[in-house]
Amino acid sequence: MRKILVLNGPNLNLLGTREPAIYGAMTLMDVERRTRSHAGGRAEIMFEQSNSEGEIVSRIHDAGQAGWGVILNAGALTHTSIALRDAIAGAGVDAIEVHITNVHAREDFRHKSAIASVCRGVICGFGYRSYTLAVDALLETH
Amino acid sequence: MRKILVLNGPNLNLLGTREPAIYGAMTLMDVERRTRSHAGGRAEIMFEQSNSEGEIVSRIHDAGQAGWGVILNAGALTHTSIALRDAIAGAGVDAIEVHITNVHAREDFRHKSAIASVCRGVICGFGYRSYTLAVDALLETH
Amino acid sequence: MRKILVLNGPNLNLLGTREPAIYGAMTLMDVERRTRSHAGGRAEIMFEQSNSEGEIVSRIHDAGQAGWGVILNAGALTHTSIALRDAIAGAGVDAIEVHITNVHAREDFRHKSAIASVCRGVICGFGYRSYTLAVDALLETH
Amino acid sequence: MRKILVLNGPNLNLLGTREPAIYGAMTLMDVERRTRSHAGGRAEIMFEQSNSEGEIVSRIHDAGQAGWGVILNAGALTHTSIALRDAIAGAGVDAIEVHITNVHAREDFRHKSAIASVCRGVICGFGYRSYTLAVDALLETH
Amino acid sequence: MRKILVLNGPNLNLLGTREPAIYGAMTLMDVERRTRSHAGGRAEIMFEQSNSEGEIVSRIHDAGQAGWGVILNAGALTHTSIALRDAIAGAGVDAIEVHITNVHAREDFRHKSAIASVCRGVICGFGYRSYTLAVDALLETH
Amino acid sequence: MRKILVLNGPNLNLLGTREPAIYGAMTLMDVERRTRSHAGGRAEIMFEQSNSEGEIVSRIHDAGQAGWGVILNAGALTHTSIALRDAIAGAGVDAIEVHITNVHAREDFRHKSAIASVCRGVICGFGYRSYTLAVDALLETH
Amino acid sequence: MRKILVLNGPNLNLLGTREPAIYGAMTLMDVERRTRSHAGGRAEIMFEQSNSEGEIVSRIHDAGQAGWGVILNAGALTHTSIALRDAIAGAGVDAIEVHITNVHAREDFRHKSAIASVCRGVICGFGYRSYTLAVDALLETH
Amino acid sequence: MRKILVLNGPNLNLLGTREPAIYGAMTLMDVERRTRSHAGGRAEIMFEQSNSEGEIVSRIHDAGQAGWGVILNAGALTHTSIALRDAIAGAGVDAIEVHITNVHAREDFRHKSAIASVCRGVICGFGYRSYTLAVDALLETH
Amino acid sequence: MRKILVLNGPNLNLLGTREPAIYGAMTLMDVERRTRSHAGGRAEIMFEQSNSEGEIVSRIHDAGQAGWGVILNAGALTHTSIALRDAIAGAGVDAIEVHITNVHAREDFRHKSAIASVCRGVICGFGYRSYTLAVDALLETH
Amino acid sequence: MRKILVLNGPNLNLLGTREPAIYGAMTLMDVERRTRSHAGGRAEIMFEQSNSEGEIVSRIHDAGQAGWGVILNAGALTHTSIALRDAIAGAGVDAIEVHITNVHAREDFRHKSAIASVCRGVICGFGYRSYTLAVDALLETH
Amino acid sequence: MRKILVLNGPNLNLLGTREPAIYGAMTLMDVERRTRSHAGGRAEIMFEQSNSEGEIVSRIHDAGQAGWGVILNAGALTHTSIALRDAIAGAGVDAIEVHITNVHAREDFRHKSAIASVCRGVICGFGYRSYTLAVDALLETH
Amino acid sequence: MRKILVLNGPNLNLLGTREPAIYGAMTLMDVERRTRSHAGGRAEIMFEQSNSEGEIVSRIHDAGQAGWGVILNAGALTHTSIALRDAIAGAGVDAIEVHITNVHAREDFRHKSAIASVCRGVICGFGYRSYTLAVDALLETH
Repeated sequence: MRKILVLNGPNLNLLGTREPAIYGAMTLMDVERRTRSHAGGRAEIMFEQSNSEGEIVSRIHDAGQAGWGVILNAGALTHTSIALRDAIAGAGVDAIEVHITNVHAREDFRHKSAIASVCRGVICGFGYRSYTLAVDALLETH
Repeated sequence: MRKILVLNGPNLNLLGTREPAIYGAMTLMDVERRTRSHAGGRAEIMFEQSNSEGEIVSRIHDAGQAGWGVILNAGALTHTSIALRDAIAGAGVDAIEVHITNVHAREDFRHKSAIASVCRGVICGFGYRSYTLAVDALLETH
Repeated sequence: MRKILVLNGPNLNLLGTREPAIYGAMTLMDVERRTRSHAGGRAEIMFEQSNSEGEIVSRIHDAGQAGWGVILNAGALTHTSIALRDAIAGAGVDAIEVHITNVHAREDFRHKSAIASVCRGVICGFGYRSYTLAVDALLETH
Repeated sequence: MRKILVLNGPNLNLLGTREPAIYGAMTLMDVERRTRSHAGGRAEIMFEQSNSEGEIVSRIHDAGQAGWGVILNAGALTHTSIALRDAIAGAGVDAIEVHITNVHAREDFRHKSAIASVCRGVICGFGYRSYTLAVDALLETH
Repeated sequence: MRKILVLNGPNLNLLGTREPAIYGAMTLMDVERRTRSHAGGRAEIMFEQSNSEGEIVSRIHDAGQAGWGVILNAGALTHTSIALRDAIAGAGVDAIEVHITNVHAREDFRHKSAIASVCRGVICGFGYRSYTLAVDALLETH
Repeated sequence: MRKILVLNGPNLNLLGTREPAIYGAMTLMDVERRTRSHAGGRAEIMFEQSNSEGEIVSRIHDAGQAGWGVILNAGALTHTSIALRDAIAGAGVDAIEVHITNVHAREDFRHKSAIASVCRGVICGFGYRSYTLAVDALLETH
Repeated sequence: MRKILVLNGPNLNLLGTREPAIYGAMTLMDVERRTRSHAGGRAEIMFEQSNSEGEIVSRIHDAGQAGWGVILNAGALTHTSIALRDAIAGAGVDAIEVHITNVHAREDFRHKSAIASVCRGVICGFGYRSYTLAVDALLETH
Repeated sequence: MRKILVLNGPNLNLLGTREPAIYGAMTLMDVERRTRSHAGGRAEIMFEQSNSEGEIVSRIHDAGQAGWGVILNAGALTHTSIALRDAIAGAGVDAIEVHITNVHAREDFRHKSAIASVCRGVICGFGYRSYTLAVDALLETH
Repeated sequence: MRKILVLNGPNLNLLGTREPAIYGAMTLMDVERRTRSHAGGRAEIMFEQSNSEGEIVSRIHDAGQAGWGVILNAGALTHTSIALRDAIAGAGVDAIEVHITNVHAREDFRHKSAIASVCRGVICGFGYRSYTLAVDALLETH
Repeated sequence: MRKILVLNGPNLNLLGTREPAIYGAMTLMDVERRTRSHAGGRAEIMFEQSNSEGEIVSRIHDAGQAGWGVILNAGALTHTSIALRDAIAGAGVDAIEVHITNVHAREDFRHKSAIASVCRGVICGFGYRSYTLAVDALLETH
Repeated sequence: MRKILVLNGPNLNLLGTREPAIYGAMTLMDVERRTRSHAGGRAEIMFEQSNSEGEIVSRIHDAGQAGWGVILNAGALTHTSIALRDAIAGAGVDAIEVHITNVHAREDFRHKSAIASVCRGVICGFGYRSYTLAVDALLETH
Repeated sequence: MRKILVLNGPNLNLLGTREPAIYGAMTLMDVERRTRSHAGGRAEIMFEQSNSEGEIVSRIHDAGQAGWGVILNAGALTHTSIALRDAIAGAGVDAIEVHITNVHAREDFRHKSAIASVCRGVICGFGYRSYTLAVDALLETH
C-alpha cells in the first residue's frame, strides 16, 4: 500500500482558530481526518505539522529514503525556502505542493513559489479538498 | 445536473502530436474522453478549444450567463491576458485554472498567471488528470 | 456631419449586469443611447463592441480610411495591446481613449496604457459621461 | 450655485509665452476666460495658480472645508507629490485631474500620476478644453 | 518544390498608405509581388495577412502539418505573444522572423521578441528585402 | 530645561476632521495638548505645523542653531524629501521620526523613509502616543 | 495584570559582547533587567531569546492563545520571515516591533520589514529604551 | 553687461557651519564674495538662496523674462524636482547646474539629476570654484 | 565596385575548432571563402578578425572614411560596447549586424544589442549564410 | 593547535546518495574523512551538519567564543540567511565560505551570497577539495 | 610647472568630421590647440587619443607615477569601464571627467558614469571649453 | 609536467604600490615569486599581466590550444566582460577565477562575475594565497 506523508509548515496548527475569513473554520485535525477518510484503504497517511524549516527538511529526507509520496503545504516557507526546494530535489521525493487558499488571490509575495518547480504539480484554493485532490493525484499518477 | 465548460486556449489542439517530451502523447480528444468518462453521470461536460482570445472571452460570458462551471486551460494566454481575467471576474463564473504540465518547472514567463487570482483555484502538473481533478474540485466544492 | 466610431473592447458587453459596484448599473446599450442623444444632430454615432483584438484593429483601419473620429474604450486591451497602438498610429485616426471607471484607482496593471500616447487625449472616471465628454472633445477640437 | 476652484501648479503661469510647440499659444488668462465663459451661470469659478506645493495643499484644504469642487492641473507636481494626494484624500474634495497636453505622449516620468487615484477622474490632451470638459464633468455628475 | 507561407500580422495591411516615413511607400501587395518574383521557380509562395492572433496561430499549425516553411512578420504581436511562440515551437515549423524596419532603432518595447528564440533566425531592417532575404535563407539552408 | 520642537508636515492640520478611520478622531490641537501635558515640567514644547517643505527645512535649521531636540512627523514628505534629510543632517539636530499611523500597514510608497537614516530613531503606529513616547525617548536618552 | 512576552530573535544573545560600536555595551540580560524594572508593577514580563525561527513562531502562538502582549525584536528575521508575519496575524497577538539600533541607518536590506505591517507599531533606534518605550506603548494603548 | 542669477537651493545657507568634512569651511557668503570677485566687471551677479521649491521656480521665471543667465545649485531638489526642470525649459533660461561637492562620489540618490538635461552643462566637485568656473562658462560661451 | 569590410570580433577566430554543437564545424576561413565566393564580382571583400575593441573601432573609422560597407559580427562586444555603437554612428558607415547563431535562443545577456540601433539591419541564425545574406542586403539596397 | 569547526547546512547530509550528477558520489562522511586527513596534525577538525538555521547560528556563536576558525558550507541558506551573516559578524569568527559545486554555474538564485561579505574569503567548485583548500587557507593565513 | 595629461577615449578622433549637429565642427586638433593656448605658460599639456581601453588604463598609470594631473574624456567607456575607474583610484591620479556635450541631455545610457566617483569633479556640456575649464579647475584647486 | 598560465588583468601591475589598505603591500612580482615557489616542481608557471581585454582573450586562446591550465585574475573585467567568458568557454580551458581581495565585501558591482560560470571554480579573499590555493586546486583535481 502506498504511503503518503502529509507535511504542514509554520502556522498551519492555527487552522480553524484564527482568521476563519481567510482559512475557514476547519482545524488541521479536521483536515487530517478528511484526508485519511478520503484515502481510505488506498494509502497510509502520515500527517504532521512543524513550525521549523529544519524539521520539515529532515522529514522530506525521511520520505525520500522510505519512498513515500509527499503532500506539502509549506505555508509561509513556500515563498522563500530554497532549503525545502533542495530537500525535495535532493531526496528525490514525489511531492505535490498544496495550499488551502488560492495564494494567487492574496498578497504579491504569496504568488511566487520556491518549491513548485521541483514538485510534480500544484493544487491550491480548494480548502481541505486541496489535500484530498492531492491524494488522488499521487495515487492515480504514481 | 451540473454543467461544466472545459475551455482550452491557443495551441492545445496540437496536444499529442508535437513536443511529447513536454506534453505527453495524449491528444486533446483523449483528454476530452477521459474527462467525460471521469465526470460520468455527475456532470455534463462541454469541451472546446480555440486559438482566439476573443472567442474564449465570449464563451466565458456564455458560461457566466448560463451558470456553468468553467475549467480553463488558457495556454499561453494564461500569462498575459487581462481580458480573460476581466471576463472571469465580470461574468462571475466559478472557474478553475488547469495546466497539463507543471508550468513552474518551465520558462520564467510561465510562472506568472494573469487569471489565477480570479479563479477559485489552480491545478497543474498532472497531465490529463489536471482536468479530472478539476472536475472533482468543481463538483465537490460547488 | 462628423462621423464618430465608438469602439468598445473585451467584456464591455457585460456592463450593467455584473460588478455594478465597480462599473455601475448602466448597460452598454444605455451608454450607447446616452451617447447618441448627447451627440444629437452634431455627429453620426456608430457604436460597436468586440471581444476580439483583431476585429478592433480592423475597425480602426476602417475609421482611418473613412476619416471618422474614434472614441476607444479598449477595456483590458488598453494595458497590453501594441497592435491597437500601431493601428491608431498607422491608420492616422483621431482617437480619444476613454474609460468608465477611474483606472488609476484600481489595480496597478490598469495604470499603464499602451495606446494613450497615440491618442489625442484620455478621459476616464466619469461613467457613461466619459463617452459624452469625448464626443464634445472630438467635435469641439476637430 | 456650484463653486469650482481651478488650481494650477508650478510653471503654468508661463503658458502661452514659452514652448508654444508643446503647450500652444494660449495664456493661462485665456484659459481662465474660456473656462469662466464655458461655465456661464452654471458655476462660480475661482481660478488660481501657484508655484508652491504647500500653497496648493492649503487651497485644497480650503476647498474641502467649503465644499467646492476642484479642477487640478498640478503640473510637474502631478508625478511626484504624495502631499497633494493626501490633501485631496484628507480634505475629501471632489477633484478632477486635468492636463493641457497628452502627458502620455511625452517623457516617461510624466506617465505616472501620484494623485489620479484619489481624484474622481482624469482628462488630458485637449488644450484649454481639458478645463471646460472638466467643468461639465463636475457639474453633470455632481 | 518547397512551399513557403509568408504570414503578416496586425496592421501590415496598412503598408504603403500610412507612415511612409517609417515603413516606406511600398504596399503589402508590392511586397508580395517582389517576394514571389524573387522566389521564382524555387518555391511556391503563399502570402497572407491577418489582424487576429488566433488566425495566425492556426495558420502556423497548418504550416506545421503540411511541412511548409514560414516567414513571419508578426508586427506588434512579435513583442508580446507567447501564443505565437508556442505555435511555432508546438507545430515544429521552420520559421524566420522578419521585419521591414530595424525594430532596434525604434521604441524600447520593440527591442524584445517573444518569438525569436523559437525561430531559426531573424532578419530586420531591409524593407521588402527582409522578405526576399528570408526566402533565400529558407531555401538555401533547408 | 530641554526644548523640543514638534514639527508637523503637510495635511496634519486636517487631523481629526477627515478620514478618522485611518487617523482617529483626535485633532492636532489635541495631540499638542497631550504632548505638552505628557512633557510636563520636563521639557518646553514648541508645536508647529506647515504644509511647506521650505518652511519645515528652515525650522529644522533654527532648531539646529538653538540646540533644540526635534520630533518630526513629516507626513507625505517623509517618503520623498531629500531636502528634509539634508536639513536634519546639515543642521545636526537630534531628531526622532514619528507617525500617528503604522505607515508599514498602508500603501507601499509609505514604507520608505527618506529621513529615517539621519534621525536617531523612529516611532510609528501609536496615535498621539507616538509623540509622547518620542518626548520620553528624547529626554531619557539625551 | 497585563502580561508581556518580550521575544528576541537570532544573535541577540551576543548583545554587549560583540560589535559594541553598533549595538552598545549592554548585554541582553541588562536589557531584560531594565525592561522589568521599567515595567515595575504595571506588567509581568517574560523575556526570551531564540536563534530558531520555528521556536519564535511557536512562542507567538502561545502568546496569542494566552492573550499576552508581545514585544518582538526579531533581529535578522525581521527582514525576510513571512512565517513570523503569518504567526502574528494568525495568532492575533498585539505586537510591537522593536530594534536596538536605527535599522534605517544601516544596510539597505535592513530597511524592509516583513512583519511591521501586522504589528501595531514600530520603535527603533533607542537602545534598550526601545524596549521600555514599547512597554509603555503596550500598557497605555491597550 | 551680462547679468547672472546665482540660485542656491535648500540647506545651502548652512554652508560652512555644518558638515565641513563634506562641504568645506567656506560659508555661502564667502562663495558669493568669491563669485562676484571672479566675475569682476564681466557680469553683474545676483546671488540668492531659498529653501522653497516654489520660490526657486519663480526666480527662474524672472530670469527667463529678463534674459539673465542662471547658475543653479539646486541642492537636494536637483535629484527629484520636475518642477525645476519644467521651469528651466519653460522659461528658456540659459542655465548651468553646479554642485560644491562631487555628487557622484556620495549616496546613490545624488547621482541622478532631474534638471541636468535642460541645462547647458554641469560642473561639480570643485568647491566654490564650481561657481566661478560656471561664471566663465556662461560668459565665454554665451 | 562596392567594397565591403567584414569585421569579426572577439573569439570568432575559434570558429570551427570549439563548441561545434553551438557554432558548427566551419572555420572562419571557410566563412571568408564562402562570403567571397558569394560576392563574386559584385563586391570586393575585406575580411578581418580582432579580439580588441579598440582595433575594431579603428577599422570602422577607416571604413567610414573610405565609404566601405560594413558587415559586423561583433561577438561578445555586441551586447555591451557603446564604443562600437558610437563608432558606427560617428563614422557614418552603412553597417549590418550579423551573427552565426540565433542569439535570441541563447543566454539572456545575448538578447540585447548595443549596436543594432545604429546599423541598417540585423541578420542572425543562419550560420555562414548570415554573412552571404548580408552581402546581398548591402549590395541590393545600397 | 588550531581548531576548526566545519559546518554543513541543510541537505548536505544527502551528499553522495542523490543527484550525483551535480554533487558527485562522495558522501559527507567521505568529505569529513578527507578533510581530517588533509589537516593531519595541523589542526583539530570538528565536523558537523544541521538542517536548522538556528542550530547553525548557535554553533557559530560557540566558535566565536572559543576562538575556532570556521569553514561554512551553508547550502541553501547561503543565499538568503541574514541571520547567518549577523552570526558571523557578531561572533567575530574567522570564517570561509565553501561550496562543493561552482554555484555560479547553476541557477541564478545561487549566484548571490548573503554571507560572503562577512567571511574572509570564498572557495567553490572543487568538490571535497573546496574543504581541504579552505583548511589550508585558514591555517596559512591565520 | 604643472603637467596635465589630456586623455581622449574611443571615437573622439572623429570630432569635427561627423555628427556636427551633436559634437560641433571643431576637430580634436582644434580642441588641443585651444586647450594648450588656454593653459599658456601655466601648465604643460600632453594631449592624446586612443580607441583602446587598455592603452588608456596604462596612460593613467603613467600619469599616476609621474604626478601629472589628468583631464579625461573617456567617451563611450565613461559609462561602462570599471577598469578605468580602478586605474584612476589605483594610480591615485588627480583626474577631472569632461565631456564636450551635455551627456545628460542624450540617451539614458549616457547618464551614468563609472568613473565620476573617483574623479575630483565633472565638467560637461561646454564644447571645447569643457577642457579649458578643466585646466583652470586643475590649476586653481591643485 | 602540468603547465599553468597565470593571467592578471587591468591595474594588477599597480599591486603593492597603491591602495595597500585594500590590496596589501605585496607587488605582483612578489605574488609571482610566491606562486612559482609554491608550485615548485609540480608545475611550470607562466605569469603575465595585461591591461587589454583583447590580449587576455588571445592568451586564453593560446592556453586552450596548448592545453595549459589557467588561473585568471581578470580584475575589473571580471564583472563585465562577456568576451572573456566566451574565450574561456570557446577555448575549452580549465580555468580558475581568483581575486586577492574578497570582492563580495566591496562595492556591489564587484559581486557579479561574468566569467565564474565557465570556470571550474572561484577562490577569493586570501591575498597572494588565492593564487597558491588555485595552483593546488588545478594540480590536485586535474
